[in-house]
Amino acid sequence: MVYLDNSATTKPCLEVISAVNNSLQNCWGNPSSSYDLGITAMDNLENSRKVIADFIGAKTDEIIFTSGGTEANNTAIFGVSEYSKRKGKKIITSSIEHPSVLEPLKQLESRGFNIVYLTPDKDGKISVDDFKKEIDGETILVSLMLVNNEIGSIQPIFEISKIIKEKNSPALLHCDAVQGFGKLPIKVSKLGVDLLSASGHKIHGPKGIGFLYKSSSVKIPPFIFGGGQESGMRSGTENMPLISGLSAAVKALPDLSKTVEEMKILKEYAIERLSNTGLVSFNSPVNSLPYIINISVDKYKSEPLMNALAARGIYVSKGSACAKGHRSYVLSAIGLDTDRIDSALRISFSRYTKTEDIDILCNALSEITAKMRRFKK
Amino acid sequence: MVYLDNSATTKPCLEVISAVNNSLQNCWGNPSSSYDLGITAMDNLENSRKVIADFIGAKTDEIIFTSGGTEANNTAIFGVSEYSKRKGKKIITSSIEHPSVLEPLKQLESRGFNIVYLTPDKDGKISVDDFKKEIDGETILVSLMLVNNEIGSIQPIFEISKIIKEKNSPALLHCDAVQGFGKLPIKVSKLGVDLLSASGHKIHGPKGIGFLYKSSSVKIPPFIFGGGQESGMRSGTENMPLISGLSAAVKALPDLSKTVEEMKILKEYAIERLSNTGLVSFNSPVNSLPYIINISVDKYKSEPLMNALAARGIYVSKGSACAKGHRSYVLSAIGLDTDRIDSALRISFSRYTKTEDIDILCNALSEITAKMRRFKK
Repeated sequence: MVYLDNSATTKPCLEVISAVNNSLQNCWGNPSSSYDLGITAMDNLENSRKVIADFIGAKTDEIIFTSGGTEANNTAIFGVSEYSKRKGKKIITSSIEHPSVLEPLKQLESRGFNIVYLTPDKDGKISVDDFKKEIDGETILVSLMLVNNEIGSIQPIFEISKIIKEKNSPALLHCDAVQGFGKLPIKVSKLGVDLLSASGHKIHGPKGIGFLYKSSSVKIPPFIFGGGQESGMRSGTENMPLISGLSAAVKALPDLSKTVEEMKILKEYAIERLSNTGLVSFNSPVNSLPYIINISVDKYKSEPLMNALAARGIYVSKGSACAKGHRSYVLSAIGLDTDRIDSALRISFSRYTKTEDIDILCNALSEITAKMRRFKK
Repeated sequence: MVYLDNSATTKPCLEVISAVNNSLQNCWGNPSSSYDLGITAMDNLENSRKVIADFIGAKTDEIIFTSGGTEANNTAIFGVSEYSKRKGKKIITSSIEHPSVLEPLKQLESRGFNIVYLTPDKDGKISVDDFKKEIDGETILVSLMLVNNEIGSIQPIFEISKIIKEKNSPALLHCDAVQGFGKLPIKVSKLGVDLLSASGHKIHGPKGIGFLYKSSSVKIPPFIFGGGQESGMRSGTENMPLISGLSAAVKALPDLSKTVEEMKILKEYAIERLSNTGLVSFNSPVNSLPYIINISVDKYKSEPLMNALAARGIYVSKGSACAKGHRSYVLSAIGLDTDRIDSALRISFSRYTKTEDIDILCNALSEITAKMRRFKK
């Protein structure tokens, strides 16, 4: 199998499987129980929290475990809107955010909030100047992704955070970092964010777990109410097996600054090999996250190509797994025509991807398109 | 270890551990991916959904997987309030619901809803006559638990559902069945509910997974917005490892009508043995769920007793794990005085509990209280 759809989900690594197992078998107490079984579970919970906090340079009480990136995004967006609604009704985002940001914002729009959608340039980057023109004293929230999930463009989050401060805006800065977490070295203070969402299953952790970083200076109400777990910010008996799994996934990560350099070399290799097939145009910008390459295979539709690759055990996607069936609004926003969009493939790497995987993909692409050409005649 | 705190959480059974493992290792595709890895995951998801649906006599599209009972309760309560707010502002519940029902209702109260809290009788049961007096054309939601988590009292859900229909009220009936699911044989049509919440970790499944049954006739908005998973009702990449685990937990359940009878015999045995110690008063009613016995050990405080038992590897709780640190509002609502409440212990069984476990508990209680008496002198 050559799995090149790591931005959709990843295969849990051995450390993660072992941690989940250990939690289920040996550490299944309820962290809220005050006897030793509960205390052991609580210790595990807090150790896991510390692993995450240390990893992004946060304090432990700034990490709220959630059921995934989607819940983290919902918690941040609905929380800020509720807390700050008396200060203003303006929210700035981009038109290429993930649905778990865009859909909550659509809800807020129907409740009278004014949502400003910044349009990215052809490289999928929003313009800092555009942002400067929009940010004002009425803006309560800025929600921008760190890395776009379809093309890998990286947004200038730190510059945005500086402008918010310069303009003395009350806006809180939320960053959906699901596609960047565990790939780019992230420190929340260096990014300048107030809130940051991340997920386990994009970094060889399990599906069903993620977290929201919430700066201790940020006061927002909870999203899920009940027994008051997670310091009252997220009720519900803690998901101990998958929290342990997420923590193990983070611990298993290599030195990211080194890995990013290796991935850049892998990406360069892939671009060269793909170029040499003479079949593709590149939709990802030059400076994108090295884990994602979006291409269009000229004159071939994404779906049959993807299926033909899958039949050979090679997995890529035609876009976001969360937007199946719809034409990509991301590729549309960066100005690609429908032909190009309809022939797009997203190739996404993980640290386990090898140059041989790229070779197999490129050879298969050449063979498959040659066959398809023959059929056409 | 003698674990008698199964209403707080349970030990995952072998079938569950194996299912979670298998999902992590062999079925880690994203169900939204349209190639074979995704389709296999989607098949697993839908098979798991069918297991749950069949178990409670629902249709598959009536099952929404959630991160647990708390999220299911939040989804039901906030969803109905949003959908029906133009029909009325009255909601009927009881004063002994779980915090994951009471806290969302408190939020709604602050938004102008009128929440009526029915008070239970000394057996922890709400009065059908009281309910008859309250239900009216303005009532949009009735939220009542099937089984109380502290004393095991069973609410007359079916009678309540009949009255709602007789009175022609627009009210939807939501039942928090977390403590009854997998213990009492539940069929949603026989209960007459529109919405029902349940959790995995009370029935030897994993923590971090549950579901909301939503009758297909009920239209409520989603609670978590995003990629549109769960037919748009609950976004976020599906928690495949724990959904598989929940399904395995349900499949591993024995014939419940038979097990309930066995548990009744176990409960009778426990009541006799506990009575014979000459130490305890019973706080659970006679007809409570046979899995829960709430007692007070006269003149001894819960906390040191619980800790002394835990030191011997015997686990009971002083009440709900979700309300630690607070005096039980459930025991207070059924009219117990503070002395009695402060000496309460909840003993909760699972299908794996044996009569020897009860013997060990009773002997330990006698020995510990004897020692404590000696210390007092």
